[in-house]
Amino acid sequence: MYVIGERINGMFKNVRGAIEEGNKAVIQELALAQIHAGASALDLNVGPAKVDPLAGMNWLIDTIREVTGVVLAIDNPKWSIQQAVIPRLGNSAIINSCKADPEALEKYVGLAVEHGAGLVALTIDKQGVPSDVDKRVELGAEIGAKAMEGGLPMDKLFIDPIILPVNVAPKQPQNVLAAIQQLKMLSDPPPHLNLGLSNLSQNCNNRPLINRIYLAMAITAGLDAAIMDPLDKDLMDAMITTELLLEKMIYCDSFLDAHRMHA
Amino acid sequence: MYVIGERINGMFKNVRGAIEEGNKAVIQELALAQIHAGASALDLNVGPAKVDPLAGMNWLIDTIREVTGVVLAIDNPKWSIQQAVIPRLGNSAIINSCKADPEALEKYVGLAVEHGAGLVALTIDKQGVPSDVDKRVELGAEIGAKAMEGGLPMDKLFIDPIILPVNVAPKQPQNVLAAIQQLKMLSDPPPHLNLGLSNLSQNCNNRPLINRIYLAMAITAGLDAAIMDPLDKDLMDAMITTELLLEKMIYCDSFLDAHRMHA
Repeated sequence: MYVIGERINGMFKNVRGAIEEGNKAVIQELALAQIHAGASALDLNVGPAKVDPLAGMNWLIDTIREVTGVVLAIDNPKWSIQQAVIPRLGNSAIINSCKADPEALEKYVGLAVEHGAGLVALTIDKQGVPSDVDKRVELGAEIGAKAMEGGLPMDKLFIDPIILPVNVAPKQPQNVLAAIQQLKMLSDPPPHLNLGLSNLSQNCNNRPLINRIYLAMAITAGLDAAIMDPLDKDLMDAMITTELLLEKMIYCDSFLDAHRMHA
Repeated sequence: MYVIGERINGMFKNVRGAIEEGNKAVIQELALAQIHAGASALDLNVGPAKVDPLAGMNWLIDTIREVTGVVLAIDNPKWSIQQAVIPRLGNSAIINSCKADPEALEKYVGLAVEHGAGLVALTIDKQGVPSDVDKRVELGAEIGAKAMEGGLPMDKLFIDPIILPVNVAPKQPQNVLAAIQQLKMLSDPPPHLNLGLSNLSQNCNNRPLINRIYLAMAITAGLDAAIMDPLDKDLMDAMITTELLLEKMIYCDSFLDAHRMHA
């Protein structure tokens, strides 16, 4: 699993405060803690912090680059932000994200290819998030086609079929599993399949339980990347155990620690 | 999910002692506790207790029937035991278990049909537990065919594709998932798909974690019955949450308690 740590996001109070006050230590500690816990990349989102969005993103990048060269997922829907930031990060960046709109895809794929960056592309079009499996797969296939046309290698593409909160969209968790299974067969090698996991349990009780059980279900369906909280130890344990049971690692008595040491 | 409580088994020291000493309270408490925790049936296994196997089984049945009429799964490989016990329990019994041998199946299906009992049939033949998916499915299909021939309704048939310990058979957890998916399409309505879950983690560390993550994976594949420990609250929480995410129930803030109240 390719874990993209979700914790550096201005919607968290401590991060928002750190961005507004220029408190580097908070950000650097969160970056290193997430990497230590098994994150392969860090999502960066300025969120509602009261700063200029581009300046805020650049400050996050500069702050983190003082302590690590890890891949950074630039979490902002605006093209102007991606266009400004991706060239300086090159192949240690992931664009997060663009929608399955043909014109947008062409631009975003072009930017990713030019700089060797990754790209998260959502199965959303002008009608919004599809409510059924087929439309998700159709949009995912369009994303895959545009990526191939534009020369983006499949291991740089993260198709995200969008998980919605289970309390408002009860059928979507299963639909997303079915979409993942089908999109995993899109090409050989396949693209990454990615989810913003925590969205599943927005405004729910027992959020960590819901998140970790669904992660096991989704990895079984073919998910191989997620924007998630690597500091949630139970969530990481669930992920590692799922991988064990899919024979992505071999059992040893210390399989949880062994995975963490090799992460 | 149809939960068959595994705790009344002579391999557990307290149960073995209770059987040998005729201590009813231990057995009755375990029976009621498992039902209260969500078991739909109770597995009964005399195990290594030093008593006559039939007398021991009859004592367990008598002891439990003093406190509940719940379905009892008679866990013994011997035909003579099943033949002696099933007639007295009738449709509140499950035969556990027979193998996928044509002659055995005919006998066991006949016994189940005659008395309205359920039947757990294992995808094991004279060569033992299959190491691949196809053989499991082939044996499962044979079981299904024999059950239909003999007039056993599919909701009385529990096909068990046999889960082996992950530390000695690392490929089998995935193979069992694939077999479940395929066997679920055997007929409409489908048979139950069942596992003796705890066997997965025999001699492993982190047994409860391994069991509950695999339960989520297997339910997603189509498992709808398991011989498992209903007194493991985390395991039951994982089961309920998996069912929530497959829309077998609708989210409410107290979904864990709500499921338990209706179990």
